[in-house]
Amino acid sequence: MPLFNKVAIVGTGLIGGSIALAIKKKHLANEIIGVSRHRKSLALAKNKGAIDRGSVALEIIKGADLLVLATPVSVIMSLAPRISKIVSKDCIVIDVGSTKGEVSNKLGKLFPNYIGSHPLAGSEKKGIINAGPDMFRGSLCILTPTRNSRAKALAKIKAFWQRLEARVVLLTPQKHDMILALTSHLPHAVAFSLIDSVPKQYLRFSSTGLRDTTRLASSDSEIWVDILLSNRKNIIKAIESFQNNLSKLKSAIAKKDKKKLSSTLKQINQKRDRLNLQIIG
Amino acid sequence: MPLFNKVAIVGTGLIGGSIALAIKKKHLANEIIGVSRHRKSLALAKNKGAIDRGSVALEIIKGADLLVLATPVSVIMSLAPRISKIVSKDCIVIDVGSTKGEVSNKLGKLFPNYIGSHPLAGSEKKGIINAGPDMFRGSLCILTPTRNSRAKALAKIKAFWQRLEARVVLLTPQKHDMILALTSHLPHAVAFSLIDSVPKQYLRFSSTGLRDTTRLASSDSEIWVDILLSNRKNIIKAIESFQNNLSKLKSAIAKKDKKKLSSTLKQINQKRDRLNLQIIG
Repeated sequence: MPLFNKVAIVGTGLIGGSIALAIKKKHLANEIIGVSRHRKSLALAKNKGAIDRGSVALEIIKGADLLVLATPVSVIMSLAPRISKIVSKDCIVIDVGSTKGEVSNKLGKLFPNYIGSHPLAGSEKKGIINAGPDMFRGSLCILTPTRNSRAKALAKIKAFWQRLEARVVLLTPQKHDMILALTSHLPHAVAFSLIDSVPKQYLRFSSTGLRDTTRLASSDSEIWVDILLSNRKNIIKAIESFQNNLSKLKSAIAKKDKKKLSSTLKQINQKRDRLNLQIIG
Repeated sequence: MPLFNKVAIVGTGLIGGSIALAIKKKHLANEIIGVSRHRKSLALAKNKGAIDRGSVALEIIKGADLLVLATPVSVIMSLAPRISKIVSKDCIVIDVGSTKGEVSNKLGKLFPNYIGSHPLAGSEKKGIINAGPDMFRGSLCILTPTRNSRAKALAKIKAFWQRLEARVVLLTPQKHDMILALTSHLPHAVAFSLIDSVPKQYLRFSSTGLRDTTRLASSDSEIWVDILLSNRKNIIKAIESFQNNLSKLKSAIAKKDKKKLSSTLKQINQKRDRLNLQIIG
Protein backbone atom coordinates (compact mmCIF):
# COMPACT_ATOMS: atom_id res chain seq x y z
CA MET A 1 0.00 0.00 0.00
CA PRO A 2 1.32 3.48 -0.81
CA LEU A 3 2.40 5.49 2.24
CA PHE A 4 1.57 8.75 0.44
CA ASN A 5 -0.76 10.03 -2.23
CA LYS A 6 1.20 12.88 -3.83
CA VAL A 7 4.92 13.22 -3.20
CA ALA A 8 6.64 16.45 -4.31
CA ILE A 9 10.40 16.54 -4.67
CA VAL A 10 12.09 19.93 -4.91
CA GLY A 11 15.53 19.34 -6.41
CA THR A 12 15.62 16.37 -8.74
CA GLY A 13 19.39 15.76 -8.59
CA LEU A 14 21.35 12.77 -7.33
CA ILE A 15 19.56 12.36 -3.98
CA GLY A 16 16.14 13.77 -4.92
CA GLY A 17 16.15 11.68 -8.08
CA SER A 18 17.18 8.54 -6.22
CA ILE A 19 14.40 9.04 -3.66
CA ALA A 20 11.90 9.38 -6.51
CA LEU A 21 13.16 6.20 -8.18
CA ALA A 22 13.11 4.31 -4.88
CA ILE A 23 9.52 5.46 -4.15
CA LYS A 24 8.48 4.26 -7.60
CA LYS A 25 10.23 0.92 -7.17
CA LYS A 26 8.62 0.32 -3.77
CA HIS A 27 5.20 1.72 -4.82
CA LEU A 28 5.10 4.17 -1.91
CA ALA A 29 3.14 6.94 -3.64
CA ASN A 30 0.34 7.36 -6.17
CA GLU A 31 2.05 10.29 -7.86
CA ILE A 32 5.47 11.94 -7.83
CA ILE A 33 5.96 15.59 -8.79
CA GLY A 34 9.38 17.10 -9.47
CA VAL A 35 10.55 20.70 -9.21
CA SER A 36 13.91 21.89 -10.47
CA ARG A 37 15.59 25.07 -11.68
CA HIS A 38 16.84 23.03 -14.62
CA ARG A 39 14.34 21.94 -17.30
CA LYS A 40 16.89 19.39 -18.50
CA SER A 41 16.99 17.72 -15.10
CA LEU A 42 13.17 17.48 -15.10
CA ALA A 43 13.13 16.01 -18.59
CA LEU A 44 15.73 13.43 -17.58
CA ALA A 45 13.84 12.62 -14.38
CA LYS A 46 10.68 12.04 -16.37
CA ASN A 47 12.56 9.97 -18.92
CA LYS A 48 14.07 7.77 -16.22
CA GLY A 49 10.58 7.22 -14.78
CA ALA A 50 11.48 9.02 -11.56
CA ILE A 51 8.65 11.59 -11.70
CA ASP A 52 5.19 11.71 -13.26
CA ARG A 53 5.16 15.46 -13.81
CA GLY A 54 7.69 18.23 -13.40
CA SER A 55 7.85 22.02 -13.37
CA VAL A 56 10.26 24.87 -12.77
CA ALA A 57 7.38 26.62 -10.93
CA LEU A 58 6.85 25.77 -7.26
CA GLU A 59 3.04 25.91 -7.47
CA ILE A 60 2.93 22.33 -8.78
CA ILE A 61 3.65 21.02 -5.26
CA LYS A 62 0.21 22.13 -4.03
CA GLY A 63 -1.76 19.25 -2.50
CA ALA A 64 1.30 17.09 -1.71
CA ASP A 65 1.17 15.01 1.47
CA LEU A 66 4.94 14.46 1.43
CA LEU A 67 7.37 17.18 0.42
CA VAL A 68 11.05 16.31 -0.01
CA LEU A 69 13.50 19.24 -0.09
CA ALA A 70 16.61 18.04 -1.90
CA THR A 71 18.37 21.23 -3.01
CA PRO A 72 21.57 22.75 -1.57
CA VAL A 73 21.02 24.05 1.99
CA SER A 74 21.01 27.74 1.03
CA VAL A 75 18.29 27.12 -1.58
CA ILE A 76 16.16 25.29 1.00
CA MET A 77 16.56 28.25 3.34
CA SER A 78 15.56 30.80 0.75
CA LEU A 79 12.64 28.85 -0.76
CA ALA A 80 11.11 27.67 2.52
CA PRO A 81 8.91 30.72 3.28
CA ARG A 82 7.32 30.63 -0.20
CA ILE A 83 6.85 26.87 -0.04
CA SER A 84 5.14 27.11 3.34
CA LYS A 85 2.44 29.24 1.73
CA ILE A 86 1.75 26.63 -0.97
CA VAL A 87 1.62 23.32 0.92
CA SER A 88 -1.05 22.51 3.49
CA LYS A 89 -0.27 22.36 7.21
CA ASP A 90 -0.85 18.60 7.15
CA CYS A 91 1.88 17.95 4.61
CA ILE A 92 4.87 16.10 6.02
CA VAL A 93 8.06 17.93 5.05
CA ILE A 94 11.56 16.46 5.05
CA ASP A 95 14.86 17.80 3.85
CA VAL A 96 17.85 15.62 2.99
CA GLY A 97 20.63 18.12 3.64
CA SER A 98 23.98 17.31 5.24
CA THR A 99 23.66 19.94 7.98
CA LYS A 100 20.73 20.19 10.30
CA GLY A 101 21.03 22.94 12.94
CA GLU A 102 20.13 25.99 10.89
CA VAL A 103 17.68 24.18 8.62
CA SER A 104 15.77 22.42 11.42
CA ASN A 105 15.41 25.68 13.24
CA LYS A 106 13.84 27.45 10.26
CA LEU A 107 11.77 24.58 8.81
CA GLY A 108 10.53 23.49 12.24
CA LYS A 109 8.88 26.90 12.60
CA LEU A 110 7.41 26.98 9.08
CA PHE A 111 6.12 23.41 8.80
CA PRO A 112 4.22 21.74 11.67
CA ASN A 113 5.08 18.28 10.31
CA TYR A 114 8.77 18.80 9.55
CA ILE A 115 11.25 15.95 10.18
CA GLY A 116 14.92 16.50 9.31
CA SER A 117 16.47 13.58 7.43
CA HIS A 118 20.04 12.92 6.41
CA PRO A 119 20.58 9.77 4.36
CA LEU A 120 24.32 8.93 4.46
CA ALA A 121 24.27 7.87 0.84
CA GLY A 122 25.16 9.38 -2.48
CA SER A 123 28.56 9.91 -3.96
CA GLU A 124 30.80 12.56 -5.48
CA LYS A 125 28.86 12.09 -8.72
CA LYS A 126 26.19 14.60 -9.59
CA GLY A 127 22.73 14.82 -11.03
CA ILE A 128 19.73 12.69 -11.87
CA ILE A 129 21.91 10.90 -14.42
CA ASN A 130 23.70 9.10 -11.58
CA ALA A 131 20.56 8.50 -9.49
CA GLY A 132 19.37 4.97 -8.74
CA PRO A 133 16.51 3.31 -6.85
CA ASP A 134 18.84 1.30 -4.57
CA MET A 135 20.88 4.27 -3.34
CA PHE A 136 19.66 3.89 0.26
CA ARG A 137 19.75 0.12 0.63
CA GLY A 138 21.76 -0.76 3.74
CA SER A 139 22.85 2.84 4.32
CA LEU A 140 22.35 4.84 7.47
CA CYS A 141 19.65 7.53 7.58
CA ILE A 142 19.82 9.97 10.47
CA LEU A 143 16.54 11.63 11.51
CA THR A 144 16.81 14.79 13.60
CA PRO A 145 13.50 15.36 15.39
CA THR A 146 13.23 18.10 18.00
CA ARG A 147 11.01 18.45 21.07
CA ASN A 148 8.39 20.05 18.85
CA SER A 149 8.30 17.28 16.23
CA ARG A 150 5.03 15.41 15.94
CA ALA A 151 5.20 11.73 16.87
CA LYS A 152 2.91 10.69 14.03
CA ALA A 153 5.02 12.42 11.36
CA LEU A 154 8.21 10.99 12.86
CA ALA A 155 6.79 7.46 12.84
CA LYS A 156 5.71 7.81 9.23
CA ILE A 157 9.08 9.16 8.06
CA LYS A 158 10.89 6.44 9.99
CA ALA A 159 8.74 3.85 8.20
CA PHE A 160 9.35 5.64 4.88
CA TRP A 161 13.15 5.37 5.12
CA GLN A 162 12.92 1.80 6.33
CA ARG A 163 10.84 0.94 3.25
CA LEU A 164 13.77 2.37 1.22
CA GLU A 165 15.91 -0.19 3.15
CA ALA A 166 17.86 2.39 5.14
CA ARG A 167 18.85 1.82 8.78
CA VAL A 168 17.31 4.69 10.75
CA VAL A 169 18.90 6.37 13.79
CA LEU A 170 17.77 9.49 15.68
CA LEU A 171 20.00 12.37 16.76
CA THR A 172 19.28 15.94 17.82
CA PRO A 173 20.13 18.45 15.07
CA GLN A 174 22.97 19.78 17.24
CA LYS A 175 24.52 16.38 17.88
CA HIS A 176 24.11 15.51 14.20
CA ASP A 177 26.04 18.59 13.12
CA MET A 178 28.80 18.02 15.65
CA ILE A 179 29.30 14.37 14.65
CA LEU A 180 28.97 14.86 10.88
CA ALA A 181 31.50 17.71 11.01
CA LEU A 182 34.01 15.02 11.99
CA THR A 183 32.85 12.02 9.96
CA SER A 184 31.86 13.75 6.72
CA HIS A 185 32.55 17.48 6.49
CA LEU A 186 36.15 17.25 7.74
CA PRO A 187 37.08 14.47 5.22
CA HIS A 188 35.72 16.72 2.46
CA ALA A 189 37.72 19.75 3.64
CA VAL A 190 40.83 17.56 3.85
CA ALA A 191 40.30 16.06 0.39
CA PHE A 192 39.80 19.54 -1.11
CA SER A 193 43.02 20.86 0.49
CA LEU A 194 45.00 17.75 -0.37
CA ILE A 195 44.46 17.90 -4.11
CA ASP A 196 45.04 21.64 -3.85
CA SER A 197 48.55 20.83 -2.53
CA VAL A 198 49.70 18.63 -5.41
CA PRO A 199 51.04 20.63 -8.39
CA LYS A 200 49.27 19.72 -11.64
CA GLN A 201 52.42 18.50 -13.37
CA TYR A 202 52.96 15.86 -10.66
CA LEU A 203 49.50 14.34 -10.84
CA ARG A 204 50.75 11.75 -13.30
CA PHE A 205 53.06 10.33 -10.62
CA SER A 206 50.16 9.34 -8.40
CA SER A 207 48.61 5.95 -7.85
CA THR A 208 45.29 4.78 -6.46
CA GLY A 209 46.25 6.15 -3.02
CA LEU A 210 45.95 9.81 -3.96
CA ARG A 211 42.92 9.04 -6.12
CA ASP A 212 40.94 7.46 -3.28
CA THR A 213 42.09 9.93 -0.64
CA THR A 214 40.83 12.81 -2.79
CA ARG A 215 37.70 11.26 -4.33
CA LEU A 216 35.55 13.60 -2.24
CA ALA A 217 37.25 16.59 -3.86
CA SER A 218 35.07 15.93 -6.92
CA SER A 219 31.96 16.62 -4.86
CA ASP A 220 29.55 19.28 -6.10
CA SER A 221 31.02 22.66 -5.19
CA GLU A 222 27.65 24.43 -4.81
CA ILE A 223 26.38 21.88 -2.29
CA TRP A 224 29.65 21.89 -0.38
CA VAL A 225 30.04 25.64 -0.07
CA ASP A 226 26.62 25.60 1.62
CA ILE A 227 27.54 22.73 3.95
CA LEU A 228 30.86 24.29 4.97
CA LEU A 229 29.13 27.59 5.75
CA SER A 230 26.02 26.27 7.45
CA ASN A 231 27.99 24.03 9.85
CA ARG A 232 30.77 26.56 10.20
CA LYS A 233 31.54 26.35 13.90
CA ASN A 234 31.64 22.57 14.16
CA ILE A 235 33.71 22.27 11.00
CA ILE A 236 36.28 24.80 12.18
CA LYS A 237 36.59 22.84 15.45
CA ALA A 238 37.00 19.58 13.52
CA ILE A 239 39.65 21.11 11.23
CA GLU A 240 41.54 22.38 14.27
CA SER A 241 41.52 18.98 15.92
CA PHE A 242 42.81 17.45 12.69
CA GLN A 243 45.49 20.16 12.29
CA ASN A 244 46.61 19.41 15.82
CA ASN A 245 47.00 15.69 15.07
CA LEU A 246 48.84 16.35 11.81
CA SER A 247 51.19 18.78 13.59
CA LYS A 248 51.97 16.10 16.18
CA LEU A 249 52.79 13.64 13.39
CA LYS A 250 54.95 16.26 11.67
CA SER A 251 56.82 16.97 14.87
CA ALA A 252 57.51 13.25 15.49
CA ILE A 253 58.88 13.02 11.92
CA ALA A 254 61.03 16.14 12.44
CA LYS A 255 62.40 14.71 15.70
CA LYS A 256 63.05 11.30 14.06
CA ASP A 257 61.05 9.81 16.94
CA LYS A 258 60.72 6.29 15.54
CA LYS A 259 59.22 4.84 18.73
CA LYS A 260 56.48 7.47 18.91
CA LEU A 261 55.71 7.19 15.18
CA SER A 262 55.53 3.44 15.39
CA SER A 263 53.10 3.38 18.32
CA THR A 264 50.96 6.15 16.77
CA LEU A 265 50.66 4.41 13.38
CA LYS A 266 49.90 1.05 15.00
CA GLN A 267 47.07 2.59 17.03
CA ILE A 268 45.75 4.33 13.90
CA ASN A 269 45.90 1.04 11.95
CA GLN A 270 43.71 -0.60 14.58
CA LYS A 271 41.20 2.25 14.68
CA ARG A 272 40.95 2.34 10.89
CA ASP A 273 40.31 -1.40 10.78
CA ARG A 274 37.21 -0.86 12.96
CA LEU A 275 35.81 1.35 10.24
CA ASN A 276 35.63 -1.54 7.78
CA LEU A 277 33.41 -3.35 10.28
CA GLN A 278 31.16 -0.32 10.92
CA ILE A 279 30.09 0.41 7.39
CA ILE A 280 27.66 -1.80 5.62
CA GLY A 281 26.94 -1.05 1.99
CA MET B 1 63.53 -16.41 -23.06
CA PRO B 2 64.31 -15.79 -19.38
CA LEU B 3 65.97 -12.43 -18.66
CA PHE B 4 67.73 -13.87 -15.61
CA ASN B 5 69.04 -17.18 -14.36
CA LYS B 6 68.67 -16.91 -10.58
CA VAL B 7 66.52 -14.19 -9.06
CA ALA B 8 66.78 -13.61 -5.30
CA ILE B 9 64.03 -11.70 -3.51
CA VAL B 10 64.72 -10.41 -0.02
CA GLY B 11 61.37 -9.69 1.60
CA THR B 12 58.60 -11.93 0.29
CA GLY B 13 55.69 -9.70 1.29
CA LEU B 14 53.06 -7.97 -0.85
CA ILE B 15 55.45 -6.41 -3.40
CA GLY B 16 58.29 -8.95 -3.25
CA GLY B 17 55.76 -11.78 -3.53
CA SER B 18 53.97 -10.12 -6.44
CA ILE B 19 57.25 -9.63 -8.31
CA ALA B 20 58.05 -13.31 -7.81
CA LEU B 21 54.62 -14.37 -9.08
CA ALA B 22 54.89 -12.04 -12.09
CA ILE B 23 58.37 -13.37 -12.96
CA LYS B 24 57.00 -16.92 -12.81
CA LYS B 25 53.98 -16.04 -14.93
CA LYS B 26 56.15 -14.35 -17.57
CA HIS B 27 58.93 -16.98 -17.39
CA LEU B 28 61.61 -14.35 -16.79
CA ALA B 29 63.92 -16.49 -14.62
CA ASN B 30 65.10 -20.08 -14.30
CA GLU B 31 64.94 -20.03 -10.52
CA ILE B 32 63.51 -17.75 -7.81
CA ILE B 33 64.93 -17.72 -4.29
CA GLY B 34 63.13 -16.05 -1.37
CA VAL B 35 64.53 -14.65 1.86
CA SER B 36 62.33 -13.52 4.76
CA ARG B 37 62.54 -13.08 8.50
CA HIS B 38 59.27 -14.98 8.69
CA ARG B 39 59.31 -18.74 7.97
CA LYS B 40 55.54 -18.57 7.52
CA SER B 41 55.88 -16.04 4.70
CA LEU B 42 58.42 -18.30 2.95
CA ALA B 43 56.17 -21.34 3.32
CA LEU B 44 53.23 -19.36 1.88
CA ALA B 45 55.39 -18.01 -0.97
CA LYS B 46 56.46 -21.54 -1.84
CA ASN B 47 52.89 -22.79 -1.59
CA LYS B 48 51.65 -20.07 -3.93
CA GLY B 49 54.36 -21.03 -6.44
CA ALA B 50 56.09 -17.65 -6.06
CA ILE B 51 59.51 -19.04 -5.10
CA ASP B 52 61.36 -22.29 -5.72
CA ARG B 53 63.36 -22.22 -2.50
CA GLY B 54 63.39 -20.01 0.58
CA SER B 55 65.50 -19.37 3.65
CA VAL B 56 65.70 -17.08 6.65
CA ALA B 57 69.49 -17.03 6.07
CA LEU B 58 70.87 -14.54 3.54
CA GLU B 59 73.53 -16.91 2.19
CA ILE B 60 70.99 -18.53 -0.12
CA ILE B 61 71.13 -15.47 -2.44
CA LYS B 62 74.71 -16.33 -3.53
CA GLY B 63 75.03 -16.68 -7.29
CA ALA B 64 71.94 -14.56 -8.11
CA ASP B 65 72.10 -12.39 -11.23
CA LEU B 66 69.11 -10.29 -10.12
CA LEU B 67 68.59 -9.30 -6.51
CA VAL B 68 65.33 -7.62 -5.49
CA LEU B 69 65.31 -5.84 -2.13
CA ALA B 70 61.69 -5.64 -1.01
CA THR B 71 61.84 -5.05 2.74
CA PRO B 72 61.10 -1.83 4.65
CA VAL B 73 63.69 0.87 3.88
CA SER B 74 65.46 0.63 7.26
CA VAL B 75 65.94 -3.12 6.81
CA ILE B 76 67.42 -2.58 3.32
CA MET B 77 69.83 -0.03 4.82
CA SER B 78 70.97 -2.33 7.60
CA LEU B 79 71.25 -5.52 5.50
CA ALA B 80 72.98 -3.95 2.48
CA PRO B 81 76.60 -4.19 3.69
CA ARG B 82 76.23 -7.91 4.50
CA ILE B 83 74.44 -8.60 1.22
CA SER B 84 77.18 -6.86 -0.78
CA LYS B 85 79.65 -9.43 0.54
CA ILE B 86 77.50 -12.36 -0.63
CA VAL B 87 76.43 -11.40 -4.17
CA SER B 88 78.86 -11.01 -7.06
CA LYS B 89 79.75 -7.60 -8.49
CA ASP B 90 77.94 -8.54 -11.70
CA CYS B 91 74.59 -9.06 -9.98
CA ILE B 92 71.99 -6.45 -10.87
CA VAL B 93 70.43 -5.10 -7.67
CA ILE B 94 67.11 -3.27 -7.42
CA ASP B 95 65.09 -2.11 -4.45
CA VAL B 96 61.38 -1.37 -4.58
CA GLY B 97 61.16 1.12 -1.73
CA SER B 98 58.99 4.24 -1.72
CA THR B 99 61.87 6.62 -0.96
CA LYS B 100 65.01 6.79 -3.01
CA GLY B 101 67.48 9.47 -1.86
CA GLU B 102 69.06 7.75 1.14
CA VAL B 103 68.80 4.24 -0.32
CA SER B 104 70.26 5.12 -3.74
CA ASN B 105 73.15 6.81 -2.09
CA LYS B 106 74.06 3.78 -0.01
CA LEU B 107 73.25 1.01 -2.50
CA GLY B 108 74.88 2.86 -5.39
CA LYS B 109 78.16 2.67 -3.50
CA LEU B 110 77.83 -0.97 -2.49
CA PHE B 111 76.52 -2.45 -5.74
CA PRO B 112 78.05 -1.52 -9.13
CA ASN B 113 74.86 -2.59 -10.94
CA TYR B 114 72.26 -0.97 -8.66
CA ILE B 115 69.12 0.57 -10.23
CA GLY B 116 66.52 2.08 -7.88
CA SER B 117 62.94 1.08 -8.76
CA HIS B 118 59.65 2.26 -7.37
CA PRO B 119 56.59 0.48 -8.73
CA LEU B 120 53.51 2.61 -7.92
CA ALA B 121 51.46 -0.46 -7.20
CA GLY B 122 50.35 -2.38 -4.15
CA SER B 123 47.68 -1.50 -1.66
CA GLU B 124 47.05 -1.05 2.03
CA LYS B 125 46.83 -4.85 2.30
CA LYS B 126 49.82 -6.73 3.59
CA GLY B 127 51.80 -9.87 2.98
CA ILE B 128 52.32 -12.58 0.41
CA ILE B 129 48.71 -13.63 1.00
CA ASN B 130 47.55 -10.55 -0.96
CA ALA B 131 50.25 -10.79 -3.65
CA GLY B 132 49.31 -11.40 -7.27
CA PRO B 133 51.11 -11.78 -10.61
CA ASP B 134 49.21 -8.89 -12.25
CA MET B 135 50.03 -6.29 -9.59
CA PHE B 136 52.12 -4.17 -12.00
CA ARG B 137 49.99 -4.37 -15.14
CA GLY B 138 49.36 -0.84 -16.39
CA SER B 139 50.91 0.78 -13.33
CA LEU B 140 53.73 3.30 -13.33
CA CYS B 141 57.24 2.19 -12.34
CA ILE B 142 59.73 4.96 -11.59
CA LEU B 143 63.41 4.10 -12.09
CA THR B 144 65.93 6.38 -10.38
CA PRO B 145 69.31 5.96 -12.07
CA THR B 146 72.17 8.29 -11.15
CA ARG B 147 75.19 9.50 -13.13
CA ASN B 148 77.05 6.41 -11.94
CA SER B 149 74.42 3.89 -13.04
CA ARG B 150 75.51 1.47 -15.75
CA ALA B 151 73.60 1.77 -19.01
CA LYS B 152 73.43 -1.98 -19.51
CA ALA B 153 71.90 -2.63 -16.09
CA LEU B 154 69.43 0.22 -16.60
CA ALA B 155 68.34 -1.13 -19.99
CA LYS B 156 67.85 -4.60 -18.56
CA ILE B 157 65.81 -3.35 -15.58
CA LYS B 158 63.72 -1.17 -17.86
CA ALA B 159 62.98 -4.22 -20.02
CA PHE B 160 62.25 -6.24 -16.87
CA TRP B 161 59.53 -3.88 -15.64
CA GLN B 162 58.09 -3.57 -19.12
CA ARG B 163 57.79 -7.35 -19.28
CA LEU B 164 55.76 -7.05 -16.06
CA GLU B 165 53.52 -4.65 -18.06
CA ALA B 166 54.50 -1.53 -16.09
CA ARG B 167 54.95 1.87 -17.74
CA VAL B 168 58.51 2.95 -16.97
CA VAL B 169 59.62 6.55 -16.31
CA LEU B 170 63.00 7.84 -15.12
CA LEU B 171 63.57 10.43 -12.40
CA THR B 172 66.60 11.34 -10.31
CA PRO B 173 66.36 10.00 -6.75
CA GLN B 174 66.05 13.59 -5.48
CA LYS B 175 63.21 14.52 -7.82
CA HIS B 176 61.49 11.22 -7.08
CA ASP B 177 61.51 11.92 -3.35
CA MET B 178 60.27 15.47 -3.79
CA ILE B 179 57.37 14.44 -6.04
CA LEU B 180 56.37 11.31 -4.13
CA ALA B 181 56.31 13.30 -0.89
CA LEU B 182 53.38 15.16 -2.44
CA THR B 183 51.59 12.43 -4.41
CA SER B 184 51.98 9.52 -1.99
CA HIS B 185 53.59 10.28 1.37
CA LEU B 186 51.44 13.34 2.09
CA PRO B 187 48.15 11.49 1.38
CA HIS B 188 49.28 8.80 3.83
CA ALA B 189 50.14 11.35 6.54
CA VAL B 190 46.77 13.03 5.97
CA ALA B 191 44.85 9.74 6.11
CA PHE B 192 46.62 8.75 9.34
CA SER B 193 45.80 12.09 10.99
CA LEU B 194 42.23 12.12 9.70
CA ILE B 195 41.18 8.84 11.25
CA ASP B 196 43.06 9.92 14.38
CA SER B 197 40.67 12.91 14.56
CA VAL B 198 37.39 10.98 14.56
CA PRO B 199 36.41 9.67 18.02
CA LYS B 200 35.79 5.91 18.01
CA GLN B 201 32.17 6.20 19.10
CA TYR B 202 31.34 8.31 16.02
CA LEU B 203 32.81 5.93 13.47
CA ARG B 204 29.39 4.34 13.00
CA PHE B 205 28.05 7.62 11.62
CA SER B 206 30.40 7.54 8.66
CA SER B 207 29.74 6.57 5.09
CA THR B 208 31.96 5.58 2.19
CA GLY B 209 33.49 9.09 2.14
CA LEU B 210 35.45 8.70 5.36
CA ARG B 211 36.24 5.10 4.47
CA ASP B 212 37.86 5.96 1.13
CA THR B 213 39.59 9.09 2.40
CA THR B 214 41.27 7.04 5.14
CA ARG B 215 41.93 3.76 3.30
CA LEU B 216 45.65 4.50 3.35
CA ALA B 217 45.56 4.64 7.15
CA SER B 218 45.45 0.82 7.10
CA SER B 219 48.88 0.74 5.46
CA ASP B 220 51.62 -1.29 7.14
CA SER B 221 52.94 0.79 10.05
CA GLU B 222 56.49 -0.62 9.93
CA ILE B 223 56.91 0.27 6.25
CA TRP B 224 55.42 3.72 6.75
CA VAL B 225 57.47 4.73 9.76
CA ASP B 226 60.53 4.06 7.58
CA ILE B 227 59.16 6.05 4.63
CA LEU B 228 58.17 9.04 6.78
CA LEU B 229 61.62 9.13 8.36
CA SER B 230 63.72 8.48 5.28
CA ASN B 231 62.00 11.21 3.23
CA ARG B 232 61.66 13.49 6.25
CA LYS B 233 62.52 16.86 4.76
CA ASN B 234 60.36 16.58 1.66
CA ILE B 235 57.43 15.23 3.67
CA ILE B 236 57.60 18.03 6.22
CA LYS B 237 57.56 20.55 3.35
CA ALA B 238 54.59 18.79 1.76
CA ILE B 239 52.70 18.72 5.07
CA GLU B 240 53.36 22.43 5.53
CA SER B 241 52.06 23.26 2.07
CA PHE B 242 48.93 21.23 2.81
CA GLN B 243 48.48 22.86 6.22
CA ASN B 244 48.70 26.22 4.53
CA ASN B 245 45.95 25.32 2.05
CA LEU B 246 43.71 23.90 4.77
CA SER B 247 44.20 27.03 6.88
CA LYS B 248 43.15 29.18 3.93
CA LEU B 249 40.01 27.08 3.53
CA LYS B 250 39.32 27.33 7.27
CA SER B 251 39.75 31.07 7.17
CA ALA B 252 37.34 31.45 4.21
CA ILE B 253 34.79 29.38 6.18
CA ALA B 254 35.30 31.48 9.32
CA LYS B 255 34.85 34.69 7.32
CA LYS B 256 31.73 33.29 5.58
CA ASP B 257 33.45 34.20 2.30
CA LYS B 258 31.05 32.41 -0.04
CA LYS B 259 32.55 33.85 -3.21
CA LYS B 260 36.07 32.80 -2.32
CA LEU B 261 34.93 29.30 -1.20
CA SER B 262 32.94 28.85 -4.36
CA SER B 263 35.80 29.74 -6.71
CA THR B 264 38.29 27.64 -4.68
CA LEU B 265 36.10 24.52 -4.70
CA LYS B 266 35.31 24.89 -8.40
CA GLN B 267 39.03 25.04 -9.24
CA ILE B 268 39.69 22.03 -7.01
CA ASN B 269 36.87 20.10 -8.71
CA GLN B 270 38.52 20.68 -12.07
CA LYS B 271 41.97 19.69 -10.87
CA ARG B 272 40.66 16.54 -9.22
CA ASP B 273 38.86 15.54 -12.39
CA ARG B 274 42.22 15.54 -14.21
CA LEU B 275 43.40 12.85 -11.80
CA ASN B 276 40.82 10.39 -13.09
CA LEU B 277 42.31 10.83 -16.54
CA GLN B 278 45.91 10.42 -15.33
CA ILE B 279 45.64 7.07 -13.62
CA ILE B 280 45.28 3.93 -15.61
CA GLY B 281 44.80 0.69 -13.74
